[in-house]
Amino acid sequence: MSAIPKDFLRATAELNAAVTQPFPSSSKIFVTGSRPDLRVPMREITQQPTAAGFGNEQNPPVTVYDCSGPYTDPAMHIDLLQGLAGVRSAWIEARGDSEPLAGPSSDYGRARAADPALASLRFEHIRAPRRARAGANVTQMHYARRGIVTPEMEFVAIRESLRLQQLREDPRYRKLLRQHPGQSFGAAIPNEITPEFVRAEVARGRAIIPANINHPELEPMIIGRNFLVKINGNLGNSAVTSSIAEEVEKMVWGIRWGADTIMDLSTGKNIHETREWIIRNAPVPIGTVPIYQALEKVDGKAEALNWEIFRDTLIEQAEQGVDYFTIHAGVLLRYVPLTADRVTGIVSRGGSIMAKWCLAHHQENFLYTHFDEICEIMKAYDVSFSLGDGLRPGSLADANDAAQFGELETLGELTQKAWAHDVQVMIEGPGHVPMQMIKENMDKELVDCFEAPFYTLGPLTTDIAPGYDHITSGIGAAQIGWYGCAMLCYVTPKEHLGLPNKQDVREGIITYKIAAHAADLAKGHPGAQLRDNALSKARFEFRWEDQFNLGLDPERAREYHDATLPKESAKVAHFCSMCGPHFCSMKITQDVRDYAASQGLKAEDALTRGMETKAEEFVNTGAEIYHKV
Amino acid sequence: MSAIPKDFLRATAELNAAVTQPFPSSSKIFVTGSRPDLRVPMREITQQPTAAGFGNEQNPPVTVYDCSGPYTDPAMHIDLLQGLAGVRSAWIEARGDSEPLAGPSSDYGRARAADPALASLRFEHIRAPRRARAGANVTQMHYARRGIVTPEMEFVAIRESLRLQQLREDPRYRKLLRQHPGQSFGAAIPNEITPEFVRAEVARGRAIIPANINHPELEPMIIGRNFLVKINGNLGNSAVTSSIAEEVEKMVWGIRWGADTIMDLSTGKNIHETREWIIRNAPVPIGTVPIYQALEKVDGKAEALNWEIFRDTLIEQAEQGVDYFTIHAGVLLRYVPLTADRVTGIVSRGGSIMAKWCLAHHQENFLYTHFDEICEIMKAYDVSFSLGDGLRPGSLADANDAAQFGELETLGELTQKAWAHDVQVMIEGPGHVPMQMIKENMDKELVDCFEAPFYTLGPLTTDIAPGYDHITSGIGAAQIGWYGCAMLCYVTPKEHLGLPNKQDVREGIITYKIAAHAADLAKGHPGAQLRDNALSKARFEFRWEDQFNLGLDPERAREYHDATLPKESAKVAHFCSMCGPHFCSMKITQDVRDYAASQGLKAEDALTRGMETKAEEFVNTGAEIYHKV
Repeated sequence: MSAIPKDFLRATAELNAAVTQPFPSSSKIFVTGSRPDLRVPMREITQQPTAAGFGNEQNPPVTVYDCSGPYTDPAMHIDLLQGLAGVRSAWIEARGDSEPLAGPSSDYGRARAADPALASLRFEHIRAPRRARAGANVTQMHYARRGIVTPEMEFVAIRESLRLQQLREDPRYRKLLRQHPGQSFGAAIPNEITPEFVRAEVARGRAIIPANINHPELEPMIIGRNFLVKINGNLGNSAVTSSIAEEVEKMVWGIRWGADTIMDLSTGKNIHETREWIIRNAPVPIGTVPIYQALEKVDGKAEALNWEIFRDTLIEQAEQGVDYFTIHAGVLLRYVPLTADRVTGIVSRGGSIMAKWCLAHHQENFLYTHFDEICEIMKAYDVSFSLGDGLRPGSLADANDAAQFGELETLGELTQKAWAHDVQVMIEGPGHVPMQMIKENMDKELVDCFEAPFYTLGPLTTDIAPGYDHITSGIGAAQIGWYGCAMLCYVTPKEHLGLPNKQDVREGIITYKIAAHAADLAKGHPGAQLRDNALSKARFEFRWEDQFNLGLDPERAREYHDATLPKESAKVAHFCSMCGPHFCSMKITQDVRDYAASQGLKAEDALTRGMETKAEEFVNTGAEIYHKV
Repeated sequence: MSAIPKDFLRATAELNAAVTQPFPSSSKIFVTGSRPDLRVPMREITQQPTAAGFGNEQNPPVTVYDCSGPYTDPAMHIDLLQGLAGVRSAWIEARGDSEPLAGPSSDYGRARAADPALASLRFEHIRAPRRARAGANVTQMHYARRGIVTPEMEFVAIRESLRLQQLREDPRYRKLLRQHPGQSFGAAIPNEITPEFVRAEVARGRAIIPANINHPELEPMIIGRNFLVKINGNLGNSAVTSSIAEEVEKMVWGIRWGADTIMDLSTGKNIHETREWIIRNAPVPIGTVPIYQALEKVDGKAEALNWEIFRDTLIEQAEQGVDYFTIHAGVLLRYVPLTADRVTGIVSRGGSIMAKWCLAHHQENFLYTHFDEICEIMKAYDVSFSLGDGLRPGSLADANDAAQFGELETLGELTQKAWAHDVQVMIEGPGHVPMQMIKENMDKELVDCFEAPFYTLGPLTTDIAPGYDHITSGIGAAQIGWYGCAMLCYVTPKEHLGLPNKQDVREGIITYKIAAHAADLAKGHPGAQLRDNALSKARFEFRWEDQFNLGLDPERAREYHDATLPKESAKVAHFCSMCGPHFCSMKITQDVRDYAASQGLKAEDALTRGMETKAEEFVNTGAEIYHKV
């Protein structure tokens, strides 16, 4: 313990206090699968009964997707210094196609492990890395294509279903499950997510389960257009600011609010050690951009990069447990001059590095020329590709241009190469795109990349709001999610301006949870509207606590409510601050409803007979106050 | 002066300090029309030159739409106790079709004027109200239909144009004016906004200029789908909180950030006096919901309302200068039972009141039965209708139902009635609608209401994020704006929870400026992309100050930047906090560009010859590093 620097210990203490509180009126539940060690976490939100004046009804609990891992489970003892339990370890070992190594096999990993100066920074309980046995392929896609339903696939099937089949048979949920038909633009979302459906989607490359065999702490999740839309949150120190402790805490903070995956984009010193801390404590997939670290290794000189350094970095990170790599293999020499006339040139860091390298060496991108070798590494650990959009537009002006779309076509070519190795692939997308040009991006990706999952940054729909780019991009993210994008990379209010702090991370993630959920609703994802319906019913019935608790950010909702009406009694009052006690439209509506009932209309009749019949019945009750519709 | 209560004087002082600062590097300019007293305000943002390393180019100023009135004009002396100058007074008088009255002609207005107890609250310089001479019609629509181009029409034509014709002839703007084609879904946006075009749009009812003859302080603006998308900000005290002084300050705060119109939704005491203060100090149209005040007059008992009280309220408010009235005349008896089965019943306050009244009296809505009389009042002052959507959905579950769409059809019927009186009309819309159902709302409104401007609240695209409903609704607002909505009613983070404070107003308005601008871009509004292009160029060139200043909220952008890199020197540094000095993608891109230029490609060639030619030329420069595209 004495080897751990003080500032990290302080952060640990803060973590316990600030981000390990369970959400209010929520409990962590587990749905057990076909084996006792397959326990899928969900969050169940308890509701209060409807008040007597509104019917005195019992309101059933609402189950929601839970990315927060053991941190919100009061039954778990959290110790960042130990890392999380390896919930997948037994599954990985049982497959018998991988083996533990004696130690890191990358040069860099060995050097860091042997450096005594790093002892005070280093995570203390590093496992020996695993790698596929000679000739074996340990990817989820490989299993899927051989017809094997892995525990990971069963896990995500249960996770995505959120007990929907069970709720459908429970009469308490009958009204809550009412939902508008969606418009899914050709998605193939089933009425029930089964393990076999998951397998089939992974097999055909339409979904990925990022799950490195060296990340057994992971609670598996899936990214694909026929599943719930996911979001990613970015972390990363830089040369200018931040520390290991801050990054670990931001990760926990991020998954608390709902990040489905986390990308570690660190570019400062001690990247290797920071990453180890994050992965060992991460229940969600961790993605990286290995070229960032490779560049650090050559002191920031892009032209000094080479395949050997990059290869060593891939192995180093794969053996730590990184679940997906952004690889900018589509930045081809012939696309580089297409950016010279842009308003904002090349804004992707990875894209810029590769462009500079290509020009300096007068050679084709080495990530492209070594792509098969990269695939060989990926499949030995099951690292998924996130094929980077190094030429994405950095401004509306540059959207959908020849450079961007040329690269996208190359990403499609690389998708097929990766699939030939049974390596999982998703495709990164823009960027800055005005609304009328977003759908073209999605449609082209689906065609060119054979429905491999699309993973987009925003897109930002205008460039004129620095300080609010979570909103400019949330607008675009909701739309592209609706059109078929599988994962949305969040943008915080600090985008273009500075590094996000904890509050910025929260703001960015909640914005993207909104965008993703709006997309699920628009696509007609089964059961997606349940939470909206429950919250709206709570709102109408003045169940303030339930309204807060069913929301994405109960703390914020409560805080805003209390800013106007701080008294506890106001939270059970049948009015709210907008209108005051005398003037409440919901109260008036209830009067209308009571009146309607007194005239002979029963709510139950209305439900079963439909609107037209009801209106007619009104006319016939003798009240004679209604015109016939 | 001694009659003014202290708390108002305090607020006045705060106003001067906080919200009358001009925006940084901005100056108020005026474009003069065909008469010297027709001076249209705009804001011109000065830019710094491009740094030597990036070309040393001069960057021309950017002109932006300016709703903030005299408050951001350092040449003006602001005195809330005096009110603003009557910029329209001479235009109104010159028409000779209206006359000043001896005093208020409403019973309530007379009673308030005569009440000595109100002296300390009352605005001191109340003008005698004007009214149309007997038989005259003073609406902008009436003039338009008679072929008259009023000063108001010319004003908005200049205002909407933002000097675009002039910029098109200025070579400094050539690149900045490049813009993607829009998708306008059948809008008829001209390449140039002329006074005659404004007249024609107003004449056919496709746009309105809310401009009460008793609001001469107004700087005219236009609402219609072929013009820039507008936003509205709501103010309003309630029985629970707020005061006159707070409301006036919030109005000034709101227009500073960009509210095109302000609705005063007060429901507390002294509504009449608060409204006078607001209108006398408002350079933007003020809208109200007169039924709120009418209800106050009958102590909150909806069933005690009657036509006489409502009529008196209309006249009272019209004579103060309210520019548009929300009138819930479409809440018909036969639609009320259609809401009984909803999850959230009737959530519009006005809708609830009228529904309750209808049921209590077993009679048709008196706003509907007296609609022609209402029109007679509207046209005597030129108050525009905002036909209220009293049955709008309060939850996703209730979206696009029979009650909502039935009412919308009735609003179409009323639109034609109002147009028969040459009274200007816009139509209010939802509410809570999932994304896949938004377009149906817009399309139905255009058909049923004959392209009268649509004015929507949001819509909110999910119900699960209390505390973030500016975002849930900003997503929907951007979409419906794109589809053809003319004005977006803002939603603040406090929606459903409490009353917005100044920061909430700012957050809500900026969110809606983003949505409106994203919609303008998507529709392909001429010149809309100029500000995006200028800001993106500034961003690429590390002109930090210009990036802040060209944004919607320069203060916020600067504050966020400084949170990471507070030193002034960092604002001229050619790197930013995200990557640090060693690792900047924009710097690398510049290197790529420099390299490209050194190989013989001139940017100018690229501009004129296009991408294909350029790539080919690259191949032929001898560098031989480029593959042919």
